[in-house]
Amino acid sequence: MDLSGVFAPLPTPFDEQDRVDTARFSKAIARWVTTPLAGFVVLGSNGEAVLMDDFESDRVIVAAREAVPRGRTLIIGTGRESTQAAIKASKRAAEHGADFVLVRTPGFFKNQMTSDAFVRHYTAVADASPVPVLLYNFTALTGVNLQPPAVATLAKHPNIVGMKESGGDVAVIADLVNGTPKGWNVLAGTTGTFYAALCVGAIGGILAVACVLPDACVRLFKLTNAGRHDEARELQRQLMPITRLLGNVHGVPGLKAALRIAGYDVGVPRPPLAPLGDAAMDSIRAALDAFSNVTTTA
Amino acid sequence: MDLSGVFAPLPTPFDEQDRVDTARFSKAIARWVTTPLAGFVVLGSNGEAVLMDDFESDRVIVAAREAVPRGRTLIIGTGRESTQAAIKASKRAAEHGADFVLVRTPGFFKNQMTSDAFVRHYTAVADASPVPVLLYNFTALTGVNLQPPAVATLAKHPNIVGMKESGGDVAVIADLVNGTPKGWNVLAGTTGTFYAALCVGAIGGILAVACVLPDACVRLFKLTNAGRHDEARELQRQLMPITRLLGNVHGVPGLKAALRIAGYDVGVPRPPLAPLGDAAMDSIRAALDAFSNVTTTA
Amino acid sequence: MDLSGVFAPLPTPFDEQDRVDTARFSKAIARWVTTPLAGFVVLGSNGEAVLMDDFESDRVIVAAREAVPRGRTLIIGTGRESTQAAIKASKRAAEHGADFVLVRTPGFFKNQMTSDAFVRHYTAVADASPVPVLLYNFTALTGVNLQPPAVATLAKHPNIVGMKESGGDVAVIADLVNGTPKGWNVLAGTTGTFYAALCVGAIGGILAVACVLPDACVRLFKLTNAGRHDEARELQRQLMPITRLLGNVHGVPGLKAALRIAGYDVGVPRPPLAPLGDAAMDSIRAALDAFSNVTTTA
Amino acid sequence: MDLSGVFAPLPTPFDEQDRVDTARFSKAIARWVTTPLAGFVVLGSNGEAVLMDDFESDRVIVAAREAVPRGRTLIIGTGRESTQAAIKASKRAAEHGADFVLVRTPGFFKNQMTSDAFVRHYTAVADASPVPVLLYNFTALTGVNLQPPAVATLAKHPNIVGMKESGGDVAVIADLVNGTPKGWNVLAGTTGTFYAALCVGAIGGILAVACVLPDACVRLFKLTNAGRHDEARELQRQLMPITRLLGNVHGVPGLKAALRIAGYDVGVPRPPLAPLGDAAMDSIRAALDAFSNVTTTA
Repeated sequence: MDLSGVFAPLPTPFDEQDRVDTARFSKAIARWVTTPLAGFVVLGSNGEAVLMDDFESDRVIVAAREAVPRGRTLIIGTGRESTQAAIKASKRAAEHGADFVLVRTPGFFKNQMTSDAFVRHYTAVADASPVPVLLYNFTALTGVNLQPPAVATLAKHPNIVGMKESGGDVAVIADLVNGTPKGWNVLAGTTGTFYAALCVGAIGGILAVACVLPDACVRLFKLTNAGRHDEARELQRQLMPITRLLGNVHGVPGLKAALRIAGYDVGVPRPPLAPLGDAAMDSIRAALDAFSNVTTTA
Repeated sequence: MDLSGVFAPLPTPFDEQDRVDTARFSKAIARWVTTPLAGFVVLGSNGEAVLMDDFESDRVIVAAREAVPRGRTLIIGTGRESTQAAIKASKRAAEHGADFVLVRTPGFFKNQMTSDAFVRHYTAVADASPVPVLLYNFTALTGVNLQPPAVATLAKHPNIVGMKESGGDVAVIADLVNGTPKGWNVLAGTTGTFYAALCVGAIGGILAVACVLPDACVRLFKLTNAGRHDEARELQRQLMPITRLLGNVHGVPGLKAALRIAGYDVGVPRPPLAPLGDAAMDSIRAALDAFSNVTTTA
Repeated sequence: MDLSGVFAPLPTPFDEQDRVDTARFSKAIARWVTTPLAGFVVLGSNGEAVLMDDFESDRVIVAAREAVPRGRTLIIGTGRESTQAAIKASKRAAEHGADFVLVRTPGFFKNQMTSDAFVRHYTAVADASPVPVLLYNFTALTGVNLQPPAVATLAKHPNIVGMKESGGDVAVIADLVNGTPKGWNVLAGTTGTFYAALCVGAIGGILAVACVLPDACVRLFKLTNAGRHDEARELQRQLMPITRLLGNVHGVPGLKAALRIAGYDVGVPRPPLAPLGDAAMDSIRAALDAFSNVTTTA
Repeated sequence: MDLSGVFAPLPTPFDEQDRVDTARFSKAIARWVTTPLAGFVVLGSNGEAVLMDDFESDRVIVAAREAVPRGRTLIIGTGRESTQAAIKASKRAAEHGADFVLVRTPGFFKNQMTSDAFVRHYTAVADASPVPVLLYNFTALTGVNLQPPAVATLAKHPNIVGMKESGGDVAVIADLVNGTPKGWNVLAGTTGTFYAALCVGAIGGILAVACVLPDACVRLFKLTNAGRHDEARELQRQLMPITRLLGNVHGVPGLKAALRIAGYDVGVPRPPLAPLGDAAMDSIRAALDAFSNVTTTA
């Protein structure tokens, strides 16, 4: 049940006709599997899951499980707006080989998404899911907030074993760690505060940048755990420019562009998302080159 | 193509086992059809569309079209996060008898939802939809904003004939009216500013309160159009308490509770939404009674 | 006590050495007095009051009262962060001839600025002020919100006779009107929604644009009151481009630039505010010319 | 010029007649001087500076300098909305013995407070100030944001030697550290993320909680610097409940209540702020007791 380490939230490849392309996905995963990443998240926010239907989702899960060897953790995103849809998706994911499901908060009916509503929703999902459940809070995208007190309540459920918190507020990470049992898995979702999140007790991270720079992210994790804070802080600093470009600035199109530059073929984003223009592509290439130069020299 | 008047965004009935209940829906529509409402929106935000799958959606559209006579406008909500899903949903809705489709903005990938992205998305949907398209902006729920300049561009598309703006900012309604051709249909989505929206040029409204108090909403529309501003202002004032309770305060569960009080059977909300508690129910009953008393006396 | 009509919130002239210039102020007021404006606000937000000390404020009040004839309403801004400072400023303003004081909410300690705190603050100021008090809510600048229920309470105080609400939310204007006694003075502070605010019951407005285009603003007021809604709506529409430039876009420096173009000499803004650059100046000139052309032709 | 360590932002005592009480202030400072705090901030946000006039401010500075021995750092808050007022206040503070001035961003005219405006403002203040200047960003209270690139520019000025960043976003602290020269003083202003801020390179902190628990805050600083991260993290965790109560929840009234419980006599807050009620007082007492128990036992 230990989820320590760095996980990559994989993008879903679409081809030029806007179809899911599992062949490209299998090939890319085969390369990611050679890195020291602890495991993978499929159909998360970076996986454009909200742009896909359930048939496509199933195909992607099956392809991922075939490409990710047993023993390497595979987490499947199964968040849906309705409780019954989240349950169905979690059951299908489990059937197809998910080790964990990562369930983003519902967020459409914002005023009604109280802590009580979240506790009811996640309890129902966890009661029904054949595999352990990870909570998932991403306020910047959902507009709702699963707060530490509700998480403390949910952490008592035997089938809810951890959480991804995608906000950059390190005080919240600390609250989540302090409010849940020792060994409960609090995972950071923001690369830009990964070092600080580890300092305050996160057990690991699910980091978009880890798709592109898996070795660096794992090194940052290990340096911090080894108490080599000066080196960790410096590595975190070096990661900031590319982190920004792949985060708020360019999002999923930025991640797909960076992966193309890094030699992964993950196709194009699905409309209404659009591929990055040349200027943006150049800025990402420059940031990757700069990172590569500084770390090679060091 | 004229969409003047008041439209009701109907709730979708679910039974106590969390299943879509089209029998209840048909029966409720039969009663709404006897009111002076100009038409109906099915599978909008109030219809809990985001909590339903595509099979359920189709059944609800079919049931609605059977219950709403031809000649009475039926608008179907077909907003989806991906462009291709919005197109498919619009085609299905048209096939099942929709007069118009109402397409809410995608909103998950907030930073990428630029005006350009919206123009691409809606152009693709309008190119493909067999029936005319209405734009739909609801920033409070989606966290993104389809702004007047992008609307002015989209209004030139021959298959985009109007818009529902759910924000309460009357200056925005005025901008939408001023930026689009005469006769293009700007519809208000907020009951609390309906009178003011009509003053600045909205042609009508899609109003949750109109499900519960159709006659009053239609009277407000007619008084304003007749230049009887003092009476309109007074009626708008009388509508405020119930409007607040059905809007921000209690949302869909509030609407379903108010309809039950008014004698409509539309079942329960779908989880994670929950039925209203007794105290909230009482506050709605009191607001409806107060409205009834003041208007009966007058 | 009747505050119906249009009031102009006058800018304070500073000279090129960053000193208050009352000579320029007197000369400009002499021209404003020839317009049909109902009166003037001095030392409001547009008057850069927060950039001035108490000595300068007194000089400006004295100069204004000399230039504004008795019988023409003179309102002085006396908002301060502390209750005792607001009281002192109100007493000084009254001594120097203010007809009313306009008291902006304190706003620095945001979490503590509850409705109770506002009621205590304004009650103390109104108890002590020799002249009637107007409340003043400007959430966009203060970050706090004086809400309709607190206003309804404060409206019972015999020395609190009205309010300026600077937000553009017309539903709030309606709530303020509906929650206060008939004849209590609700004044709109946003030119862009002035027509709509009058529709829902505002008695008048304090409008930055009225410094530059007093005749047009007064005409808008009269057309609406005369029930000539189509003409009012059209005039409101014509005012929008210049309204936007003087509001959010360019603020006080924009207002001073527009006045210079219109032949008023009100000097430069006080640092850290800076005079407008040439491009911005040109855009304001173009908007004023466009407005002038369209209204002359009509 | 080294500002490492923990500084306390002292509250200003007011008596029951709402007058500044420098006698109480001197007595309280005499006790604070016996603690291991690196120094003191007077007339900051916690000092209710915005509620005081310039005469009162001068008296408080004089009293503070008399009570704080030379060699112990005394920082005076001199932020004002206008550039010339900030300059005058900084000169007066220097004359009365300030070692540094802490200059909060102007924030009233939000749309005009661009990076350029901040650079002009701070450059003018730093050019004129006889003592070194610290920048001060507190977005939650001012509604404006002095961002890392502008700080990087300003850090080149020889008389601008550091900054207090009161936001809790640790990534911003890291950006400030990374964008300024080694040895430039980045000080955290939020107790709840103090440990994390030190991890990413802050040199110290100006912490409200340090008024009440100076020894604990200094211990947290020393543990972190000594690489004893587990103990630091645990102490940070223990400080959270009281930190929350003194921060967002109860603000200045909470700080004054906590100090009364701790045996300091700092009078009452100035209206419109109000003293804490009994229930809030009890919650603070309980949090202080809990902290005392856990640290005594340990």
